[in-house]
Amino acid sequence: MSSYPYPLLNPPPFSWTRGENVSEPKVHQWIEPIDAHHQEEWGAYDAVILGVPLSRSSISASSASENPEAFRRAWKSFTTYNLDEELDLSELRVVDLGDVREHVTDISICHQNIRDAMKAIQSNHPNSLPIMIGGDHSITAQLIKGYKDIHPKERVGILQLDTHFDLRDLTDNGPSNGTPIRNLLENQVVRGEDVYNIGLHGFFNARSLKTYADEAGVNYMTMKEARQKGMEQVIGEALSKLEAKVDKIYFTVDMDVLDISAGPGAPAATPGGMYVHELLEAVQIAGASQKVCAMDIVCLDPTKDVAQATVKTGVHVMLSFLTGFMQRKEQ
Amino acid sequence: MSSYPYPLLNPPPFSWTRGENVSEPKVHQWIEPIDAHHQEEWGAYDAVILGVPLSRSSISASSASENPEAFRRAWKSFTTYNLDEELDLSELRVVDLGDVREHVTDISICHQNIRDAMKAIQSNHPNSLPIMIGGDHSITAQLIKGYKDIHPKERVGILQLDTHFDLRDLTDNGPSNGTPIRNLLENQVVRGEDVYNIGLHGFFNARSLKTYADEAGVNYMTMKEARQKGMEQVIGEALSKLEAKVDKIYFTVDMDVLDISAGPGAPAATPGGMYVHELLEAVQIAGASQKVCAMDIVCLDPTKDVAQATVKTGVHVMLSFLTGFMQRKEQ
Amino acid sequence: MSSYPYPLLNPPPFSWTRGENVSEPKVHQWIEPIDAHHQEEWGAYDAVILGVPLSRSSISASSASENPEAFRRAWKSFTTYNLDEELDLSELRVVDLGDVREHVTDISICHQNIRDAMKAIQSNHPNSLPIMIGGDHSITAQLIKGYKDIHPKERVGILQLDTHFDLRDLTDNGPSNGTPIRNLLENQVVRGEDVYNIGLHGFFNARSLKTYADEAGVNYMTMKEARQKGMEQVIGEALSKLEAKVDKIYFTVDMDVLDISAGPGAPAATPGGMYVHELLEAVQIAGASQKVCAMDIVCLDPTKDVAQATVKTGVHVMLSFLTGFMQRKEQ
Amino acid sequence: MSSYPYPLLNPPPFSWTRGENVSEPKVHQWIEPIDAHHQEEWGAYDAVILGVPLSRSSISASSASENPEAFRRAWKSFTTYNLDEELDLSELRVVDLGDVREHVTDISICHQNIRDAMKAIQSNHPNSLPIMIGGDHSITAQLIKGYKDIHPKERVGILQLDTHFDLRDLTDNGPSNGTPIRNLLENQVVRGEDVYNIGLHGFFNARSLKTYADEAGVNYMTMKEARQKGMEQVIGEALSKLEAKVDKIYFTVDMDVLDISAGPGAPAATPGGMYVHELLEAVQIAGASQKVCAMDIVCLDPTKDVAQATVKTGVHVMLSFLTGFMQRKEQ
Amino acid sequence: MSSYPYPLLNPPPFSWTRGENVSEPKVHQWIEPIDAHHQEEWGAYDAVILGVPLSRSSISASSASENPEAFRRAWKSFTTYNLDEELDLSELRVVDLGDVREHVTDISICHQNIRDAMKAIQSNHPNSLPIMIGGDHSITAQLIKGYKDIHPKERVGILQLDTHFDLRDLTDNGPSNGTPIRNLLENQVVRGEDVYNIGLHGFFNARSLKTYADEAGVNYMTMKEARQKGMEQVIGEALSKLEAKVDKIYFTVDMDVLDISAGPGAPAATPGGMYVHELLEAVQIAGASQKVCAMDIVCLDPTKDVAQATVKTGVHVMLSFLTGFMQRKEQ
Amino acid sequence: MSSYPYPLLNPPPFSWTRGENVSEPKVHQWIEPIDAHHQEEWGAYDAVILGVPLSRSSISASSASENPEAFRRAWKSFTTYNLDEELDLSELRVVDLGDVREHVTDISICHQNIRDAMKAIQSNHPNSLPIMIGGDHSITAQLIKGYKDIHPKERVGILQLDTHFDLRDLTDNGPSNGTPIRNLLENQVVRGEDVYNIGLHGFFNARSLKTYADEAGVNYMTMKEARQKGMEQVIGEALSKLEAKVDKIYFTVDMDVLDISAGPGAPAATPGGMYVHELLEAVQIAGASQKVCAMDIVCLDPTKDVAQATVKTGVHVMLSFLTGFMQRKEQ
Repeated sequence: MSSYPYPLLNPPPFSWTRGENVSEPKVHQWIEPIDAHHQEEWGAYDAVILGVPLSRSSISASSASENPEAFRRAWKSFTTYNLDEELDLSELRVVDLGDVREHVTDISICHQNIRDAMKAIQSNHPNSLPIMIGGDHSITAQLIKGYKDIHPKERVGILQLDTHFDLRDLTDNGPSNGTPIRNLLENQVVRGEDVYNIGLHGFFNARSLKTYADEAGVNYMTMKEARQKGMEQVIGEALSKLEAKVDKIYFTVDMDVLDISAGPGAPAATPGGMYVHELLEAVQIAGASQKVCAMDIVCLDPTKDVAQATVKTGVHVMLSFLTGFMQRKEQ
Repeated sequence: MSSYPYPLLNPPPFSWTRGENVSEPKVHQWIEPIDAHHQEEWGAYDAVILGVPLSRSSISASSASENPEAFRRAWKSFTTYNLDEELDLSELRVVDLGDVREHVTDISICHQNIRDAMKAIQSNHPNSLPIMIGGDHSITAQLIKGYKDIHPKERVGILQLDTHFDLRDLTDNGPSNGTPIRNLLENQVVRGEDVYNIGLHGFFNARSLKTYADEAGVNYMTMKEARQKGMEQVIGEALSKLEAKVDKIYFTVDMDVLDISAGPGAPAATPGGMYVHELLEAVQIAGASQKVCAMDIVCLDPTKDVAQATVKTGVHVMLSFLTGFMQRKEQ
Repeated sequence: MSSYPYPLLNPPPFSWTRGENVSEPKVHQWIEPIDAHHQEEWGAYDAVILGVPLSRSSISASSASENPEAFRRAWKSFTTYNLDEELDLSELRVVDLGDVREHVTDISICHQNIRDAMKAIQSNHPNSLPIMIGGDHSITAQLIKGYKDIHPKERVGILQLDTHFDLRDLTDNGPSNGTPIRNLLENQVVRGEDVYNIGLHGFFNARSLKTYADEAGVNYMTMKEARQKGMEQVIGEALSKLEAKVDKIYFTVDMDVLDISAGPGAPAATPGGMYVHELLEAVQIAGASQKVCAMDIVCLDPTKDVAQATVKTGVHVMLSFLTGFMQRKEQ
Repeated sequence: MSSYPYPLLNPPPFSWTRGENVSEPKVHQWIEPIDAHHQEEWGAYDAVILGVPLSRSSISASSASENPEAFRRAWKSFTTYNLDEELDLSELRVVDLGDVREHVTDISICHQNIRDAMKAIQSNHPNSLPIMIGGDHSITAQLIKGYKDIHPKERVGILQLDTHFDLRDLTDNGPSNGTPIRNLLENQVVRGEDVYNIGLHGFFNARSLKTYADEAGVNYMTMKEARQKGMEQVIGEALSKLEAKVDKIYFTVDMDVLDISAGPGAPAATPGGMYVHELLEAVQIAGASQKVCAMDIVCLDPTKDVAQATVKTGVHVMLSFLTGFMQRKEQ
Repeated sequence: MSSYPYPLLNPPPFSWTRGENVSEPKVHQWIEPIDAHHQEEWGAYDAVILGVPLSRSSISASSASENPEAFRRAWKSFTTYNLDEELDLSELRVVDLGDVREHVTDISICHQNIRDAMKAIQSNHPNSLPIMIGGDHSITAQLIKGYKDIHPKERVGILQLDTHFDLRDLTDNGPSNGTPIRNLLENQVVRGEDVYNIGLHGFFNARSLKTYADEAGVNYMTMKEARQKGMEQVIGEALSKLEAKVDKIYFTVDMDVLDISAGPGAPAATPGGMYVHELLEAVQIAGASQKVCAMDIVCLDPTKDVAQATVKTGVHVMLSFLTGFMQRKEQ
Repeated sequence: MSSYPYPLLNPPPFSWTRGENVSEPKVHQWIEPIDAHHQEEWGAYDAVILGVPLSRSSISASSASENPEAFRRAWKSFTTYNLDEELDLSELRVVDLGDVREHVTDISICHQNIRDAMKAIQSNHPNSLPIMIGGDHSITAQLIKGYKDIHPKERVGILQLDTHFDLRDLTDNGPSNGTPIRNLLENQVVRGEDVYNIGLHGFFNARSLKTYADEAGVNYMTMKEARQKGMEQVIGEALSKLEAKVDKIYFTVDMDVLDISAGPGAPAATPGGMYVHELLEAVQIAGASQKVCAMDIVCLDPTKDVAQATVKTGVHVMLSFLTGFMQRKEQ
């Protein structure tokens, strides 16, 4: 079945076998490597995947930088066929661009590289949906800035699943993982009223951040309220409101939105958070929105994971999002 | 309280104390060892337990072979009294037959031994309910074949809780843990229409397996749908349909049906799976069906478990099943 | 921002920084140390926290004695602001009294010290709500006895969240963690009809304990029933009934009430238990009851925890309880 | 090969198969269970094994009480044949008496039971070598007292491998695991000059304990010095000196004598301790001394072990000691 | 520095970057992938690496099958430059052939494939040194048989570092990991006198295996004796004796030869085994022998490893062996 | 015994109890907190301890920033009395200054703060021996620069225990943890000939770094050679040579010098490294050198540690160094 030239042998198990012509691929056999020699095809992808292995910008010590590699290893255990929706992701063409190059001791270079990478994606793959695998939440500010660099006239909104506001003051410790939304608001990249954050709860946000959110007009709903209303309705309403006022929606999933029992690999996950089935449902709905133009998955530290539970849930988030994306295209 | 002959001493804690005459037994004090010298009593058991420590037939490296021993250690922390149902399992007589002998390097001998063990059970304990503790899912095919060897005229259906179809092609890699249902269909042991699989979901089954299932007439319901309808109704309906057409129902629980947050010891458990309370509810209902003639619990690898969560859930599955079984007898 | 005298330095990270004048404190910056030099202020606290590091009285080997220290470390990651309720716990004054001194080889001295500590609290802080961090469940009997020593005429009831009855016979092994409720009943400290235990289930209580509970008039509801009715209603009803007949309610949370997937650090947690969001909801309602006079959190062994999930859930239980307490004061 | 009555089946893997007539036994097949019905044979054993599952007397929280069970599970992976010495332990008759019954909340009862158990052993098995599997080090005082109860006229010395003096003041916290040697000295059971402690080092003993040791005439040698001189010579000399003045030598191995890299399951193991090969060498030499009359292995907490390294080393200590014992008999 | 075509990006971190023209490569950048299109170069490699991911032939449940992948991941943290010997392995050309294809349920097919793979190596790379990464020890018998199929007239000896004889009876459980040496002796592939096994010790070999070894003339030395004599001398003597009588020496390293404190990932490692520096010294000397024609590393289960200690030691064994090989060439 | 004002209570177990007047202190009771109100005493300390919680400058993701807190927790299990040397560290006055304040996203600010902290120490505590607890190895460059800022005329040499040269090119990734020695050489802070690095080995340094070391005249010795010569002699010779040419010696211990079996918490520890007893011996000798003016302990990531082995070894390194320091003063 394999095309490996040596009789009786399989290639080394983590070599670049992507893009093989396999009838029923696993995810790693479906996602293609970028091909430098056929740049004319770069625009033809439905989606592009970009690893953003930066977590030295985290307030707490984090190895979320290891997550892109962890994702690539974990998605080998997923097929492309979604049984729930009877839909095969392999009908999409998806390319893996590799990882943004990071500097060891100068975080501002890292952030610039991330912004530039998003610009390059927008230039080279204008019709593709970018999916970014963090890394910590500081990257979201850079990615949206990069997007806006190319599309300065678009009004961009944010749908955020998160335990935290991410509205900390940048003058305290610079553009850390606690600041991305404030970073975008203060730089007039996004308006407060165009941010919808779902899943906040409990004792994990200082009061001043809530005050700031209220003053900035940021929209948010606690996990408790979201659970009572039902995830389908809550996400649907947020998307409807956003679609009515913005041109494009950036979707960001902070894995610490998970309940602590479900997210050992998201060190900031807390008691009272989202359960796995709620998260997957929310993500698929977001993927189906015509205006969602990009997404990221952040703050997942695979070195702290247990039984790969959080990493696999993260990969499923990506695939559920792409499921919504396929459904969007079929509408 | 103990009858150990040495004053002040307790016997070694894992010695064979089963079958002691204890007023309020723990599970290990209730389940009896098989007694070679009183073979005339062999037919009097309500249920027989059989360990099937085979997992070298697993596609992925597995230590599910260690699970029968893990169960026997873990059930010491369970009483026989079910508070929810105000019912005491110790009114049942249950015997532990030990484990099927396995061959190290010839899996076909293992499979034959498993089949023969089920035949022996059907002969020696014709009125007992067999409960098999795997081991991987390949054993289910052998166990049902063994059952049919003794009861060739019975039409046997399957109720399956699983993340996977288990319908892989046997010509690829032989009778592995991905193949048991197909094995039974292709050998005309069970009909496709007599299989009900509940709990499948997500990206864990190739499209061709779904096609095969459809062509074979296998019945299945995704986890998402089952959760929406409610486990009680879903299992009830599946059992009703089966009861209307088959003579006997074999019940098989692949522990990977659990959500990944609840099943660290089931390495194939995935995001979006069944929660513990849903599983226990489903199992008890199945135990209460008059036509359920045997059950197994498979694909639980205790060496990967965390805080014994999955092993204890597995033991509870067995006890909840026996709870249903007692309720069935009381009807 | 810090007042540490040495330029550029922060104090050692776990030194006693509590009671600092910080505008938006973390929990450890809000809870005050007891100040020996201003004993006149001892009565002014809204709540007092007492560590009870005793677990050598546990039937199974336990390191729950390490839990008070684990709590104090873990609560540094919580703010005092509760976003769900838009309420700031820092408006309460809370003092940490430290830990009850324990004897290594004489458990009766430990128990006497615990009882005396509660008496001292009732004398020194008559208007404060005591919150005790165990240790194992044997401490509850001593704490309620100490309370009754000071308030002999009050009729005290118990609201208990637990997988177990805790009604074992004291003549077997003395006042272990399996006996606190029976200890109180047999000593006429509390009446059976004044005990409400919610969350029991499955195969974790011998039949004789249920019989004892019934004969003693202890009220209880299984987890299954509580989940069907809804936690809000169940706890509300139990509190209403208690409030109608007793003067004060002691609230005790055995962390083993959690489902095993959510409570790796509660070694007696079992399959089929309470989920995190259910527990937090129950606790907050209890905190809001005007008659609840004290609470404890027991049987959490941090050395067995995974990803701090159970310890953080335990801390959240304390904070959710205080949230209810603030709401009570605002009524 | 197995005599299990059921064709194709093996008995449950941890049932009491000891004492089977197996030509080349594993350790669990060689060590016999005590047989209540043939008490006339009780005196014929070469050695008796006694589990002493007490660790609630430990200063730090400990689960060393789980160690006897851990040993019995672990020794299944050892044969009786010692390749180094070309000697087969199965030529000895060894019986497992089970475990001393412990009380949950009264440690003085536990200690009395342990003392009584040793008295029973000396009465029932006067010619057998007792090997005690702790438990914490507090048991050593009780075991030697029990021995002396039966042999009041014998002068008993102690050879101790330990990181600590175990000379703490009993008036502080009672007969904890820090006190056994002092307990014996103060009660005139053993003389200071008859104690030889090897392996102490570093920052793990208060100065006053050294002063006490010096004043009491206790002999000791640091690990550093022992390593320089060589374990064979050091142990040989200590035994020679002891043999010259006492009637019997009790040998006690505190597993915390191991270097921390080799003893994860001995929580008090420290940097700079003994390596595995040094420990095994020391133990075998001690076993060969004609005057060594009993031994114990203490302070091994299997719940903290990693990869079973410390438990297996502990079992090997027992077997190496028996190797020396066989060599003694052959002299 | 990187030649990746996309500005600012690095390729996915585990893609096939081997064989890049990097001035100071890490091991994964040095070892080349096999190139199907330039088969004329296949003979030019100094060494070939072959993964043999078979462990379902293990007596105990094992995931040693995962080891080739673990090696390939771990060797990224090693440079090619050996500072101790001031020698750069990158002067050698080494190719990675990938893994032998294994069958899931028919171990005899696996064994045949392994044998055939060695034959293919001998044909396609006649001048290369094969290094096999197991997998369990059963593969050694197949690899040597495959070698002999191509070189039937050569007399092949074995240098073995192992805790065990690996001389179990094949009629018991077939060609398991306990049998490879006996398999070769009984099939007249190797003579008993041409086997030198170093590192056996303790209670891990039944007496009958020693008797068999003696009768077969197998040479062996215990770890204790080897440590006393010094590893350099012991290995040197064994090689000298072998070189004097055989044509070629096959070198096999069972990682369970390590002391249990150093080999958590070698589940059969035992107390009293080899320390890391001793193993590395032994391996380098073996690599330097002119007659050593192949080597394998077996019985390392990376799923049980702690802190990657055993996997990294295994990779170092491979590199130390190649160091010796380079020194051999320079002689 | 405790002076805590509340009867029967102990203070919270990790509060600042240092500097208490305890007759036989544990390390945390001996080391004093800095007292802002008695600045006149600041110069009277024998040694000052400074935490340097920076590891975002690490090439690989690291949580070595958590190490100062881990040290402070772990040293509670150490006494001040060194039994080997019969010497009590509590005769020294040692102060804990707390931790250098770090910036989240600007590493150059972190490095400047570290340098300034060392300058402040040299000014405020001119007669004290500074001991720095890292953090990663990048801090060493800053600390020595800070020292030189105050003592510009002193010639400072370095004694380094390390697996690596730490001579990477700063133009690649800035002043990361791979560069400190080169940083100092290129900035003419230290001369190559004044650096002695002991413990390098294996495949962990690129050839170009060795070339650079040779050209810069850096002195180094492999672990293998050091073990053969004996640690005492090797360290003694290096110190003698340094003492002959420099004014002061800075001693830096990279914990990755440990063998991988002994250093799970030092992620860069490798096979073939130093054993614990060798490290402790080396450190004590260094502490005794009259010219050693400061020391640091780096690259210990407590979140990866197992059984606290590496953290406790790190604390012992600090205490062994202070032991040497006391011996120096007594000379």
